[in-house]
Amino acid sequence: MVGQLGVIGCGLMGGSFALALREAGQVRRIVGHSRARATAERARALGVIDEVADSPDEAARGSDLVLLAVPVAATGAVLATLRDALDPQALCMDVGSTKRDVVEAAAAALGDRVRQFVPAHPIAGAERAGVDHAHAGLYRDRLVVLTPDAGHDPARVQRARSLWERVGARVQQMDPNSHDRVFAVVSHLPHLLAYAFYDSIASRPDGAALLDLAGPGFRDFTRIAAGEPAMWRDILLANREEVLRQAAAFRVALDSLEALLAKGDAAALHARLATIAQGRGGWHMRGAGNAGD
Amino acid sequence: MVGQLGVIGCGLMGGSFALALREAGQVRRIVGHSRARATAERARALGVIDEVADSPDEAARGSDLVLLAVPVAATGAVLATLRDALDPQALCMDVGSTKRDVVEAAAAALGDRVRQFVPAHPIAGAERAGVDHAHAGLYRDRLVVLTPDAGHDPARVQRARSLWERVGARVQQMDPNSHDRVFAVVSHLPHLLAYAFYDSIASRPDGAALLDLAGPGFRDFTRIAAGEPAMWRDILLANREEVLRQAAAFRVALDSLEALLAKGDAAALHARLATIAQGRGGWHMRGAGNAGD
Repeated sequence: MVGQLGVIGCGLMGGSFALALREAGQVRRIVGHSRARATAERARALGVIDEVADSPDEAARGSDLVLLAVPVAATGAVLATLRDALDPQALCMDVGSTKRDVVEAAAAALGDRVRQFVPAHPIAGAERAGVDHAHAGLYRDRLVVLTPDAGHDPARVQRARSLWERVGARVQQMDPNSHDRVFAVVSHLPHLLAYAFYDSIASRPDGAALLDLAGPGFRDFTRIAAGEPAMWRDILLANREEVLRQAAAFRVALDSLEALLAKGDAAALHARLATIAQGRGGWHMRGAGNAGD
Repeated sequence: MVGQLGVIGCGLMGGSFALALREAGQVRRIVGHSRARATAERARALGVIDEVADSPDEAARGSDLVLLAVPVAATGAVLATLRDALDPQALCMDVGSTKRDVVEAAAAALGDRVRQFVPAHPIAGAERAGVDHAHAGLYRDRLVVLTPDAGHDPARVQRARSLWERVGARVQQMDPNSHDRVFAVVSHLPHLLAYAFYDSIASRPDGAALLDLAGPGFRDFTRIAAGEPAMWRDILLANREEVLRQAAAFRVALDSLEALLAKGDAAALHARLATIAQGRGGWHMRGAGNAGD
């Protein structure tokens, strides 16, 4: 049981964690801070948090669990602010989508208190950001990757694991570098591609007319292009070497399909598409029970 | 009211049209043909069609509405087969995703009977192909583009429009070339990109491990990479000049985002992502009532 949860960043991720922990009956009191006070007020009005804190350190003070849900580039600065307010027994976690930069920033900001920090990345999201779209089920059946290294405290890693499991997630551990390589491929690059694709249409003079005719395939393919810009700016920059490397690998695959098209090689194109479609048709998101996932 | 509907190609599209027309109380009897007899038998077992026809011309004979739902490259050959079986009063439609090639193939195959043909493209789809996933709601609130030209019969175009409206669709007319240019951008290219992206991961030695860690963003971005290979081979080949032209435009947009990443230009990257995310966040598929769309 968490006596007090301090949420820093009361958006979709932070708000959903608060709601989920409360629904699981695992928290007594929730204090929340957001850079824009109106956001934290809104979170309180929605019953996501019990009390608004004026600063990150005020949210941390007296909390036995502190959840950082801010764009990854802000991690270091926020941790430095709350360092001295952190209860010596407290556990502090983030929810950032990159981990090498977060681990480094936490080490620099927290010093020997880095033992209290457990880097976490829940693989969860929704079409709409913001606390208004937060819900207790966001992490249910979702994967959460923890990326502690030698400096982190095994007991707190275990506690982090158990908390994420309480809100319905499956937990996996990975080192921060492997994490960033993996998620450059399966998450960061597709976001970059979706942004670029949407941009290539929207910026055309006839863009509005084209968008008016787009259907369900387009809708799903571009859903992630609505991703929160500050969050994705930080993720893409923090992991830019891997992302650019993976973008190059994607271009090779695209070159190869384009070459089959240009040659009009129907048999080879069919063979390639069949392999891909069969693979994707048989793929299911881990933990997701229903075929629609 | 349609006395007899002949469906040629009892898959997701053809099967869903049959179910929808029946649900609307607009058809008495449905005869279906599929190249693989087992497919038509399955459609009958599911109650999608009433009777299995051994050939396209058998499905056409006695039908006052013939719906062709086959890969676009097969359009000409199938129409040539059923031409002489077509009742002089009948209306014949396709559901192909490219229209210039279909209009040309229909003119060549049907001769003066091309007046009986109305080229149609419903903008609808589902993650899973095949008659088992057919449902009466597939076309509800979806756009259907009709692309008749001077050779087609205005009365039949009107009848086609009214039939699609009966199954819940909105109908728009466009010339075949404009249609193919538009859908190269909003549909064919994203399919090519999704295929290439999935391929770039699945073909890696560590592909399976990566796919195991992918989450909901990946799931939605790659949904269309499960698209039926024969159907998409034909679409991409039929419209390859436009698709390749649009792929080049997409690469320019990607180049530009990659350049901002490589430079580490956080402000410019944020500005660009914010514009895109705001655009996509405010986009709604036409006809789709709910925000989740």
